[in-house]
Amino acid sequence: MFFEGAEKKAEIQVDSEKLSLLNDIPNEYWHDLVHKCEAKILSSIENKYCKAFLLSESSLFVWDDRFLILTCGETKLINSIEFFIQTYDVAILKQVTYQRKNEYFSHAQPSCFGDDLKILAKYVDGQAYRFGALDGHHNYIFHYENDFEADQQDKTYELLAYQISERASKLLSTEGLSKQQIRTLFNFDQLIPEFVIDDFVFDPYGYSLNAIKDDKYLTIHVTPQESSSYVSFESNIDLISLTPQIMKVLEPESFDILTYNEFDYVEKVNQFIPSEYQATCKIQQTLTNGYEVKFSNYLKPSAEFTSPAKININGDNHAL
Amino acid sequence: MFFEGAEKKAEIQVDSEKLSLLNDIPNEYWHDLVHKCEAKILSSIENKYCKAFLLSESSLFVWDDRFLILTCGETKLINSIEFFIQTYDVAILKQVTYQRKNEYFSHAQPSCFGDDLKILAKYVDGQAYRFGALDGHHNYIFHYENDFEADQQDKTYELLAYQISERASKLLSTEGLSKQQIRTLFNFDQLIPEFVIDDFVFDPYGYSLNAIKDDKYLTIHVTPQESSSYVSFESNIDLISLTPQIMKVLEPESFDILTYNEFDYVEKVNQFIPSEYQATCKIQQTLTNGYEVKFSNYLKPSAEFTSPAKININGDNHAL
Repeated sequence: MFFEGAEKKAEIQVDSEKLSLLNDIPNEYWHDLVHKCEAKILSSIENKYCKAFLLSESSLFVWDDRFLILTCGETKLINSIEFFIQTYDVAILKQVTYQRKNEYFSHAQPSCFGDDLKILAKYVDGQAYRFGALDGHHNYIFHYENDFEADQQDKTYELLAYQISERASKLLSTEGLSKQQIRTLFNFDQLIPEFVIDDFVFDPYGYSLNAIKDDKYLTIHVTPQESSSYVSFESNIDLISLTPQIMKVLEPESFDILTYNEFDYVEKVNQFIPSEYQATCKIQQTLTNGYEVKFSNYLKPSAEFTSPAKININGDNHAL
Repeated sequence: MFFEGAEKKAEIQVDSEKLSLLNDIPNEYWHDLVHKCEAKILSSIENKYCKAFLLSESSLFVWDDRFLILTCGETKLINSIEFFIQTYDVAILKQVTYQRKNEYFSHAQPSCFGDDLKILAKYVDGQAYRFGALDGHHNYIFHYENDFEADQQDKTYELLAYQISERASKLLSTEGLSKQQIRTLFNFDQLIPEFVIDDFVFDPYGYSLNAIKDDKYLTIHVTPQESSSYVSFESNIDLISLTPQIMKVLEPESFDILTYNEFDYVEKVNQFIPSEYQATCKIQQTLTNGYEVKFSNYLKPSAEFTSPAKININGDNHAL
């Protein structure tokens, strides 16, 4: 069974004097918005800064002046974004960032990034880039181009791990695994002390977590199956410095790091990325909205020949 | 403008005592077969061993006991294969190999490898593999599983180059470039002396070549545009030893080597692959039909940060 773990992602910043996302929008609206991309809300946690919704496909975080939504699988995230813009009007938008990681079963996707751009272009002008080579790991990023200027302290970190070790894959694909077993595996007590956690174990496997502490968030989504294993972390806390602990658990063959406004990127990468990994690409751009984006893919170079993956020709290969 | 250079490929071996592909099949049939995948024959050359057809999307080679067809773009190669099996019956088949390189605009493809497998499975039993990680360069390979035993001298070489240098891309994308200019660039007189050449320059750019000498063949297909540059070589002459000359012309950031029955692969790679390239994967399998397949991707590791590729948001991005 193959599953497209790679997320589509949107962050919408609004003028909170015109529209307070926490006070002016009822939870029902967020249910409707999530429904538009063909996902649903499973559960939620909140504090005075943030509402965090765990979705059937990834996560939605709402702060007073912005929301962030990540959806995986074959969801139609662009529909949720269009729904929001149509409900509240372009005039309240301060910034729109829309992002898609290259997909591995893109044949099965309801739209491609180019299709999504056409919908965004109906409402906002912008710029779009491909961070990374076409034939390597890459991220498509669109942003609204207006008079908005990014806060230099507004940092985002993504860590996306591929081909996790056989050990980690087997463990995380065990049927009937409990939340507590997964929390212990990742050692969240140490990784994110004092965060409030909302997590979910999917049937037969798969795991999602939202964690918040004041205005800080972390979200993790685990697609553990060996044929297409993928684990994504996204946060506004520094994930680069947590890389050694995460790598120890997952032992991936390959991972991506993408940051917004991490100005000490090079120093941190030198300090924290385990030495057996090598950068296959390093891409950097300061967007016209002021965000500095950096993207790298890291890979453990092959030493020995290995066997190919066998494909069950009678299986469900609709996406290969 | 994006173009899917990655080829689908099929090699069909038949019992030539029951059906001589050179003597029993008129050229009109090959035109019909190519038409089934929505390509067309542009020109042809032949000698007593082989007919080589240059197609609007890649190439078809016919020997007495086998044919090899490669098609790129959004062609439906599987339809041509089904057409052949339906015309001449499964009983004449000795071997079927069906192969797809991972595509970069797979959203735009009329089918995926899994869909094609379902059609093959109506006629022949077989095995299928993915050579290479899902998140890296990879090749899907299916083969018919029967009592056929591969001739150990039956060798095939593929060399697939990605992200050719800006210099090579600009030169090869020049409108109005002549065949002779491209032949001179690749230095075919030295690379394949005494081969008969049939080549074609596409409008506004793009280049295809078939070359034959006795039972030897070489085919080259050039997608030069900077946004999605790709140059493929396939041959039954040793391409590994020609790698240094080819790399000098194209200077790609990345390339794949795939071989059937190259038993001196490791020695040759050590001798001929320029040292600035590093293997990102090494996959090997002896198929149950006796072919030993090896696949590697090579990459120039990134030293410095570079800029992302800008996407024209008003352009034709239907495949991104």
